[in-house]
Amino acid sequence: MNSLILIAHGSRLTESNDEIRTLTAQLRTALGDAYARVECAYLELSQPSIPEAIDAAVHAGAQKIVLLPYFLAAGTHIQHHIPAIVSDKRAQYPHTEMELRPHIGQSQAMIELLCNCA
Amino acid sequence: MNSLILIAHGSRLTESNDEIRTLTAQLRTALGDAYARVECAYLELSQPSIPEAIDAAVHAGAQKIVLLPYFLAAGTHIQHHIPAIVSDKRAQYPHTEMELRPHIGQSQAMIELLCNCA
Repeated sequence: MNSLILIAHGSRLTESNDEIRTLTAQLRTALGDAYARVECAYLELSQPSIPEAIDAAVHAGAQKIVLLPYFLAAGTHIQHHIPAIVSDKRAQYPHTEMELRPHIGQSQAMIELLCNCA
Repeated sequence: MNSLILIAHGSRLTESNDEIRTLTAQLRTALGDAYARVECAYLELSQPSIPEAIDAAVHAGAQKIVLLPYFLAAGTHIQHHIPAIVSDKRAQYPHTEMELRPHIGQSQAMIELLCNCA
């Protein structure tokens, strides 16, 4: 079964982390049957951490985990921190496919979204 | 004349900051005549800063400045840091209208964008 993990940065503010949980619930509904599980994870400052979310997906029976970084720009988190975490987990779970997607700032739809906000 | 400032966090990585400049150029093209100026600004770690970008817009003759935070979640930057900077600049330039928009993570189009990435 397929599992999607939306990776957010995490914040010191509870309401900011809650915003990610709300978004994840909306995404779960919008994606319908595409993924058996849709969860969020935080790079820092909140739980579950990325390793914890991957552990939970594997223990729930995920054969494939898609990791989608909810990040706008390719900073050090995208270039280094998140790939290193995923690399460790691939070594730990060699029978689980883990696909780290480009961060959402790379999406072609971002310009359209910005035009609607501007 | 109207001026749009896309506010990014800023990164230690040059390529990440350059990504914002490229996005700003694409947005400028996409928006056409909606704004006389479309520029970016960084909260930290790169230039121009938000105050510098506002100064430049005012000096270029902007009567209205729309500030669009290119941020996903309502963390401390969105709740406190950016509003405080804009508040200072409103006091400095009382004849210039400054409209601080919601951060883009609040956009209704975000779920659709995420579904396309997932």
